[in-house]
Amino acid sequence: MDTLTSSPLVSDLPGIAADILSRVRRKSPRVHCLTNAVAQNFTANVLLAAGAVPSMTVAPDEIAQFVARADALLINLGTLDRERRQAATTAVEAATTKQRPWVLDPVFVDRSRQRAEFARRMMSMTPQVLRLNGVEFAAIAQAEPAQDALDRYARDQCCVVALTGATDAVTDGGRKLKIENGAALMGQVTAMGCAGTALVAACLAVEKDSWLAASAALLAFAVAGECAAARARGPGSMAVEILDALAGLDREILLTRARVR
Amino acid sequence: MDTLTSSPLVSDLPGIAADILSRVRRKSPRVHCLTNAVAQNFTANVLLAAGAVPSMTVAPDEIAQFVARADALLINLGTLDRERRQAATTAVEAATTKQRPWVLDPVFVDRSRQRAEFARRMMSMTPQVLRLNGVEFAAIAQAEPAQDALDRYARDQCCVVALTGATDAVTDGGRKLKIENGAALMGQVTAMGCAGTALVAACLAVEKDSWLAASAALLAFAVAGECAAARARGPGSMAVEILDALAGLDREILLTRARVR
Amino acid sequence: MDTLTSSPLVSDLPGIAADILSRVRRKSPRVHCLTNAVAQNFTANVLLAAGAVPSMTVAPDEIAQFVARADALLINLGTLDRERRQAATTAVEAATTKQRPWVLDPVFVDRSRQRAEFARRMMSMTPQVLRLNGVEFAAIAQAEPAQDALDRYARDQCCVVALTGATDAVTDGGRKLKIENGAALMGQVTAMGCAGTALVAACLAVEKDSWLAASAALLAFAVAGECAAARARGPGSMAVEILDALAGLDREILLTRARVR
Repeated sequence: MDTLTSSPLVSDLPGIAADILSRVRRKSPRVHCLTNAVAQNFTANVLLAAGAVPSMTVAPDEIAQFVARADALLINLGTLDRERRQAATTAVEAATTKQRPWVLDPVFVDRSRQRAEFARRMMSMTPQVLRLNGVEFAAIAQAEPAQDALDRYARDQCCVVALTGATDAVTDGGRKLKIENGAALMGQVTAMGCAGTALVAACLAVEKDSWLAASAALLAFAVAGECAAARARGPGSMAVEILDALAGLDREILLTRARVR
Repeated sequence: MDTLTSSPLVSDLPGIAADILSRVRRKSPRVHCLTNAVAQNFTANVLLAAGAVPSMTVAPDEIAQFVARADALLINLGTLDRERRQAATTAVEAATTKQRPWVLDPVFVDRSRQRAEFARRMMSMTPQVLRLNGVEFAAIAQAEPAQDALDRYARDQCCVVALTGATDAVTDGGRKLKIENGAALMGQVTAMGCAGTALVAACLAVEKDSWLAASAALLAFAVAGECAAARARGPGSMAVEILDALAGLDREILLTRARVR
Repeated sequence: MDTLTSSPLVSDLPGIAADILSRVRRKSPRVHCLTNAVAQNFTANVLLAAGAVPSMTVAPDEIAQFVARADALLINLGTLDRERRQAATTAVEAATTKQRPWVLDPVFVDRSRQRAEFARRMMSMTPQVLRLNGVEFAAIAQAEPAQDALDRYARDQCCVVALTGATDAVTDGGRKLKIENGAALMGQVTAMGCAGTALVAACLAVEKDSWLAASAALLAFAVAGECAAARARGPGSMAVEILDALAGLDREILLTRARVR
């Protein structure tokens, strides 16, 4: 039994998510994305569909200026070339100096040792949110992705952990919830998880409570994914439909469809 | 009052644009694009939809050979890493030597000082066309994007200025026109402006009058955008529909829909 | 007259291709792709639509570990920057050591001398399959792409040659076949050929006979393209429909539609 089933925060989340999304649309926050080459285009389109303004440069000598002019930062380790490693450190330092929230997406951290080490170094710079899947959690936290391990890692790292999968889990070590929306077809479109993390960054730009921001973003993305899957005829149309669904997502759809516990 | 309202060139533009587009389809010009990573795929697809043949390498040691075998060149500053800066200079030198037309798209020139300086250095190499938005014009020309400032900058730089926005403006300092086609949804798809600039390059490849080429490209793109928006259900389908609309664009649609003054 | 018209292998190919595709879906092989920036997103989506798991890093210092954990490798020369050249050599060495099959796609090898030289050096490392078009064959093999030249080159290089065009040809020097499926619209979508080569890599991961694997992949892709073209209204929707068609491709469609000789 999840002890938070009756928490007002959890049952209120769909409405809070609708508020946060409205703020993204109204304020058009700038989100700087240091992300992998595969994900750049789709990520930018997800941010635009949600009402945010993406920028994507990876050049180490100008990224600090882009971050300083942005409202939030995404660091995605999907393409970890030399230039991006250098740019990531510079970007996070700029975000820290300017007190901009940032989120880390340690893609494929399970596939190479260098990547795991680099991701741990990034974690020591304390992102507001860490978004990853179960295999990546195991590689970075060296523990199975069970709820108590997520909570402990969130407390140790002073950071919200947002684990996505068939069910998404968001915890800051104290508050936690599970999101049961989503669609299998989301897993057949490349960069879907990466783009969802960018949406976390957009929500962090307009909501100081990182746990709420991360929860709102993952809920909105999962509900949009469900709406999209209902219309899609395969992974190609899924990638198109989720952008349309995200742009059309409103409070009523969120309140009707959300399955949060 | 725009003194050119009754200019035969302006009222003839839709037909001239149809002619230029036909030539692009018939001659399949090669357009080499040095563009940002976010825009590469969509830009290539816009060029293919229009009938041109894109190439996209950014490697400094082979770009000169690609430019030499191309009919026009696009320089887009959206991802300005070290390699692309070096490649841009090499590419423009090759275009100048081989007398190939080129167009500059100084993306995000307002966001970092290095970028503005680099863009001004590019301008000193005299592109046939500069395509940008109002904020970028202000940063590069250090003047508000009013008509007389556009005209003056075009004359000073010996280059056509094509400013896109709710209304597009194209001027060579003497001849000028405004295009009122387009759709708000175009702004919700990443790299839409970048891809429009690539279409300018394709038209420059088949039309020596740079002002006509730029005007034809922006008109065709804006009309295709309008047709696409009429079918799209959001930004995801918009990105798909504009490619279909561009491939299907014909003289009749251009003559019927064009709103040029 | 093609002497193999009545070969049981050729007439059985549609069924064999269906078997190979089923294995890709069941085993979800990992395919590491060193490919160009334009093609990365679409290539990843084609692999996911077929049931394979793509990875895409190009960083020279981690690519060997990605290849070691993958089941097949794609080397595409479309963006041939310094980092990718170094990564390509490292990746192929890792594939050779780990006995992973790999396929070479020498994109635009006709456009620059360095590229042709680099492609020939890659060929000396003996890929299982070389996938290319007629112009690229002429540049790399220095012979017109007639059947006997393809056969000879395949024998000399100990590698399957898969030539795509209006008709596709696959030969290992002894066995050969021609595939007449496909659709003109495929040529109006960027990275279509690159993505088809990635599908060859996915099939190589589950089928040791490289000639069968290459033939199955090209047949499946061409049939999916035909199904997609029947639904598409232009190149934009074509790129979407082919992903849906590939995900929905089954034995019955393959047996009904295949035109192999």
